[in-house]
Amino acid sequence: MQVKDILVSAPGKAILHGEHAVVHGKVALAVSLNLRTYLRLKATNTGNVRINLPNIDTFLCWDLSELKEGEAAKRLDPELVRRLHDFVGVTNGTLDTSTMATLSFLYIYLSLFGSGELPSLTVSVWSELPTGAGLGSSAAYSVCLAAALLCASGAIPTPLRDWDHTARWCQEDLELINSWAFQGEMIIHGNPSGVDNAVGTWGGMLRFLAGKIIPLNRVPLLRILLTNTKVPRSTKVLVARVTDRINKFPSIMTPVLNSVDAISGTCEKVLSEMTSEPITGEHYNNLEELIDINQHHLNVMGVGHPALDTLCRVTLARGLHSKLTGAGGGGCGITLLRPETDSSVVQATVQDLKDCGFDCWETSIGGPGVQQHSPLSVKEQAVEVLNRY
Amino acid sequence: MQVKDILVSAPGKAILHGEHAVVHGKVALAVSLNLRTYLRLKATNTGNVRINLPNIDTFLCWDLSELKEGEAAKRLDPELVRRLHDFVGVTNGTLDTSTMATLSFLYIYLSLFGSGELPSLTVSVWSELPTGAGLGSSAAYSVCLAAALLCASGAIPTPLRDWDHTARWCQEDLELINSWAFQGEMIIHGNPSGVDNAVGTWGGMLRFLAGKIIPLNRVPLLRILLTNTKVPRSTKVLVARVTDRINKFPSIMTPVLNSVDAISGTCEKVLSEMTSEPITGEHYNNLEELIDINQHHLNVMGVGHPALDTLCRVTLARGLHSKLTGAGGGGCGITLLRPETDSSVVQATVQDLKDCGFDCWETSIGGPGVQQHSPLSVKEQAVEVLNRY
Repeated sequence: MQVKDILVSAPGKAILHGEHAVVHGKVALAVSLNLRTYLRLKATNTGNVRINLPNIDTFLCWDLSELKEGEAAKRLDPELVRRLHDFVGVTNGTLDTSTMATLSFLYIYLSLFGSGELPSLTVSVWSELPTGAGLGSSAAYSVCLAAALLCASGAIPTPLRDWDHTARWCQEDLELINSWAFQGEMIIHGNPSGVDNAVGTWGGMLRFLAGKIIPLNRVPLLRILLTNTKVPRSTKVLVARVTDRINKFPSIMTPVLNSVDAISGTCEKVLSEMTSEPITGEHYNNLEELIDINQHHLNVMGVGHPALDTLCRVTLARGLHSKLTGAGGGGCGITLLRPETDSSVVQATVQDLKDCGFDCWETSIGGPGVQQHSPLSVKEQAVEVLNRY
Repeated sequence: MQVKDILVSAPGKAILHGEHAVVHGKVALAVSLNLRTYLRLKATNTGNVRINLPNIDTFLCWDLSELKEGEAAKRLDPELVRRLHDFVGVTNGTLDTSTMATLSFLYIYLSLFGSGELPSLTVSVWSELPTGAGLGSSAAYSVCLAAALLCASGAIPTPLRDWDHTARWCQEDLELINSWAFQGEMIIHGNPSGVDNAVGTWGGMLRFLAGKIIPLNRVPLLRILLTNTKVPRSTKVLVARVTDRINKFPSIMTPVLNSVDAISGTCEKVLSEMTSEPITGEHYNNLEELIDINQHHLNVMGVGHPALDTLCRVTLARGLHSKLTGAGGGGCGITLLRPETDSSVVQATVQDLKDCGFDCWETSIGGPGVQQHSPLSVKEQAVEVLNRY
C-alpha cells in the first residue's frame, strides 16, 4: 500500500439560497460548511479490514479472505452492489445509515483494490456533522473515503509535505476524488444530485442549475451559526408541497421563484464584490436582507415551520439574520454573523437557541474542500477520537 | 329644513390585499369594515349650530349669525377654506383631528346651506373606529356628514320608510354623497385617493388601480378580527421604504409586486365564486393561504413589525390567519374567521390579543356602505351616546 497513515477531512454542505427553487429550474447556491468529517486510514498487518464509525456506533472488521469475494469490481457494478448487500446482510430494500456507510466503504475499497492484493487497513471516521440533517454528511464521508483510499491505492499522491499543516490536491486529482465520492453517494442515496460531493471536494461555493454544477471562483469565508431544530421532516413531502402550491397558484408562485432566482444572482454578485473590493458593512447589510427575503419566500412556498420562525425571531432579537437551509419544514437554519459581532453576542445567541431545544454550532461557510492534514493541524477532539482506534 | 331628525352610519375601510403594491401600479382591494361611524342630525330652534364629537372630545356651538360669514361658498372654495381656518383659529399649517373634523363639517354645512337661510341644528357623531389607524375613520365621518346634510338640505331624499330598520339611497344619490364626502376628505387630508369615501359610501369591496376606483358587484360578508397593535407609524416613511427596496433590488422586488397583484386577482376570483356557488371550506382555505402569502410579501417589502409578527403567531396558534392591513410597520391587522370558528375560540383569541396590549374587535368586512337607520336598528351603545346630546 502506498501510504502508512493518512488523515483527511471534508466539509459539509449548506444551501445558501435557492433550495426548492432549484427543483423548478432556478439557480441554487451551495456552500461548504466548515463542520467537517475527519478520516484516518492506517495500514495494518493484521490481515483484516476494520472500519470504525463512532458517530453512528458502527465498528466492523472483516478478514481479507472474506472480502476477496468482490475482487472483480468495476465502477458501480450492480452485481457487486448486490453481492455486497448479501455480504452485509441486507434483507429488504431499506438500509440504515450504518449499513449504507459500510456498503459505500466496501464498494470503494473493493473497486480500487479488488484487482490486486487487498491491503490490510483500518479506517476511522469522526464527524462534526449531524447525520440525516441535509448537511451533506454522507458526501463528506464519501469524499474522505475516496481521497484516502485513492491515496492508499497510489492512484493519487498525498499532497502533504513535511512542513505543511494542511494540503489540497491538484484539480485533476480532485476530479478523481469527486467521481469516486459520487460513486459512494450513489450507493447511499440511489440518485444523488452530485452537489454534496462536489461541495465536499471543492469547498467554497458552487452554482447548481438544471443539473449542472459550476464551482465559483472565489468567495469570502463567512462566519455563521448552524442550527439544527431537530424537527424531523421528509424532503420528498416538502418538495411535493411546493410543487402543489405552484400548480394551485401559478400566477402567484411563479414570480416568487423568479424572485428567489434573483436573490441567488444578487448574492453571487455581493460575494464576488467582497473578494474584489474592501469588505464593508453594506455588503453584510445586503447579505442579511437577502437572507430575510428568501426566508419569507420559503414560507410562501410552504416549507417554513414554527421552529424555524423561532430561530429567526430569537436570532433577530440579537440583531442576527437567519434562514432555513435545505428542505425546510424543520431541519436546519443558518444565521449570518458579521465580522464585528462580538463573541459574547454569539455565545448568548447559541445559548438562547440551545434553550429552545436546538443544537447549534458556530462555524463558517465558504471554506476549503477536502484536505489532507498533519495530525497537529486537526482539532484536538477529532484527533483524540480517531486515535482511539 | 327638510328633516327633523336623521340617523345615518357609514363603515370604515380595510385593505384586503395590495397595500403598497398599489403605489407601484398594482391592484389593491379595499373593503368596507363594519366598525361604523354613527351620525344623528336634529333640527333645533335654538338659532345655533352644535357639533358633538365625543370620540375626539370636541363639543362646539356657533350662533347662526357668526356663521353667515361663509354664505357664498362653492365646492372646495379655497377662500372659504382660508376663512374657515381663521374662523376656527388655525394659526399654523398643522391641524389636529378636532380642528379638521370641525372644518370639514363647516365646509359641507356652509356649502350646502350658505346660499339660503342657515338652519339651526345639532350634529352628534359617535364612532366605533379608532382614529388615525388607517381605517378610514375620517371618510366614514365625511360620508355621514354628506348624507345627513344632503338630506337636511333636500338635495336627496331620506330613503327610510316607516317599516324599515335601515335603508340605502339610489345610485345617483350615493354618487352625490360620495362627491361631497370627497370634499370633506380634501379638507381633512389635502390629497386623498378617494378610496376611503368610496368604500364608506358603497360598502362591499372595490378594486383600486392606477387612481381608478371600481366597485365590485357582489362580495360575501366575511367575519374578521380587526386588531390595532397601537404601534405608531408614518405611512410616508413606510411608502418610501418600499420604494427604496424596489430601487435597491429591482430584480428581486418586481416579481414580488407581480405576485401581490396576482394575489388580489386570485382573491377577487375566490370571493366572486363564493357569491355564485355554495361556499365551501376550500374557499376559506384559499383565502387563508392568500392572507399568509401576502403577509410574507409585505415583510419582504420591509413593512412588517414584531407586533404584527406577534399578531400572526398568536392567531395562528388558534388556527387563524392574519395579515397587516394598510401601511404596516405596526398599525392594524385583520384576522379571517371561518364560518365554523367557534365563538369560544374567537373570544379566547381576542383575549390573547388584548393580553399582548392590542385593541381587538370582532367585526366583518364586505358589509353595506352608508345607511339611514331607525333608532331601533342601531346598536344600543351608539343610540345611548348620540341621545346624550
